Amino acid sequence: MLAVSLKDGVVSVRRQAVPRRPEGFATIRLIYGGICNTDLELQRGYYGFSGTPGHEFVGQVVEADDREWIGRRVVGEINLACGDCEWCRRDLGRHCPNRTVLGIVKHPGAFRELLTLPVRNLHCVPQEISDQQAVFVEPLAAACEILDQVRIPRGERVAVLGDGKLGLLIGEVLHAHGAEVHQYGRHREKLEIARSAGVQTELVRNGNFPSAEYDFVVEATGSTAGLRQAVAMTRPRGTVILKSTTHGLARIDAAQVIVNEITLVGSRCGRFEPALRLLAAGRVKVDALISEILPLQDAARAFRRASAAGVLKVLLHA
Amino acid sequence: MLAVSLKDGVVSVRRQAVPRRPEGFATIRLIYGGICNTDLELQRGYYGFSGTPGHEFVGQVVEADDREWIGRRVVGEINLACGDCEWCRRDLGRHCPNRTVLGIVKHPGAFRELLTLPVRNLHCVPQEISDQQAVFVEPLAAACEILDQVRIPRGERVAVLGDGKLGLLIGEVLHAHGAEVHQYGRHREKLEIARSAGVQTELVRNGNFPSAEYDFVVEATGSTAGLRQAVAMTRPRGTVILKSTTHGLARIDAAQVIVNEITLVGSRCGRFEPALRLLAAGRVKVDALISEILPLQDAARAFRRASAAGVLKVLLHA
Repeated sequence: MLAVSLKDGVVSVRRQAVPRRPEGFATIRLIYGGICNTDLELQRGYYGFSGTPGHEFVGQVVEADDREWIGRRVVGEINLACGDCEWCRRDLGRHCPNRTVLGIVKHPGAFRELLTLPVRNLHCVPQEISDQQAVFVEPLAAACEILDQVRIPRGERVAVLGDGKLGLLIGEVLHAHGAEVHQYGRHREKLEIARSAGVQTELVRNGNFPSAEYDFVVEATGSTAGLRQAVAMTRPRGTVILKSTTHGLARIDAAQVIVNEITLVGSRCGRFEPALRLLAAGRVKVDALISEILPLQDAARAFRRASAAGVLKVLLHA
Repeated sequence: MLAVSLKDGVVSVRRQAVPRRPEGFATIRLIYGGICNTDLELQRGYYGFSGTPGHEFVGQVVEADDREWIGRRVVGEINLACGDCEWCRRDLGRHCPNRTVLGIVKHPGAFRELLTLPVRNLHCVPQEISDQQAVFVEPLAAACEILDQVRIPRGERVAVLGDGKLGLLIGEVLHAHGAEVHQYGRHREKLEIARSAGVQTELVRNGNFPSAEYDFVVEATGSTAGLRQAVAMTRPRGTVILKSTTHGLARIDAAQVIVNEITLVGSRCGRFEPALRLLAAGRVKVDALISEILPLQDAARAFRRASAAGVLKVLLHA
């Protein structure tokens, strides 16, 4: 079978043996994979990753202990938790210290013709959701995670900084939640996607950000500078949600955070259920976020395209 | 009357006219003032301050519209709020955008023989609290603010980083709240004060900090490096409370905050009531924190002493 390989920043496609399926796991035939900013960060050396990347996917189960699963169209939670520790008992396997992570930490990723995941990580995809839409369940779950962590009242004005893939999904999720979302971005055509989804947009030029204006600000710019900007836009006692997958040290004005008693909340992966519900009900639109679809064999080109300016989601088709 | 003056980093004592008392204000004769780290930061140029510093004090009312106040021993909340804005209506005048701040922002401070404050800022000091103890009400209120912002369960293990004046008060307040406090510091003799108050102490040598160990970590080291340390000690989904009055940019490992979904909470001034209750009930001991008491005339020397290594609270006596 074909598998994408990432080593020392170089993406290639190789022939590989079909993966062995451990007990409790399913073997899944890839339909689509999605390239995420985290994949691009892995390429840049984040986590010292080497192997098959990919954690956004939709596929079809071809093998499992329980034959009921076979033929099902599935998406999968990316954290492979031990199932036994304090975190797992609290239903927070996403923080299990013994976890591996699909395509990120010690578990080969989804960018291969056949992948394996524990059956307990899988969710069936309802028929209302197309294959291409289903690839967005994982990043959409990450957007929904905000609402699991922070209580944002309906009708509340919320600023979302960034008009990249994740930023746009966050804008849509918070809009569907009933917030009055103001999406700040630098790309007119990306903001247009947000506007079509009913979100208010603000094209950023010459740093025309308001000061101390919002009780809730989501930082999804993908840059470490975004955090300082987010703090400056937040009202006293307000909350900044950190969603950027940037690596390295971010600088914050600690005095501003302390004097204004601002809360910063780190936010990562989320539960899949809310994301599946939003997609199935058509309350979040993702098709406009797909920039290109390339075959798995063209993974190297797909990674280059995904990191090009103006490009949103690039899908790999098996 | 005598008043301390701070200009371009130089502390001096001058003769001044008695301050005019506006309507609604009281004139207060200073008994003791306390030198806080913020005063030392003002001396270093923080806020571009010039004038009379001082915001920790106890005094006696000598003039007020309502004669009932005259002769009363008082402490005073340091934020002079407009009383009219959204924040003031929410009883959060500490965040009023029109506020001045005693000895910090556009209102002359407490280090003078006679000072003025709005009567609504004043709290009578119960007789169980000595003059010297009463000076600690303001910093103790800042320590209590943590419990107004963050729900810390009784019995919970909490790390407090820093064994300075504020760090020790925080340790005592959280201990009185029922938390199992672990105070980390670099000064054996300061930690001894915490230990006498019933707090567990950890002498820090060669960076022997535990990793991802606490659900709650309070950063009170007074250094920007402390924040990274605090984040590293916090468990996934845990909370770091920022209490250091440092000025400038602090660097945080954003990936660690995001991957572990850590919450950072900036925390500043607090309500005086809980602090007065703790002191009156003898549940927090502050006498051991007083390093030196000097007359107001010796303010320059007192500031030098307050910034010397190993020195905790320096009081000025009028």
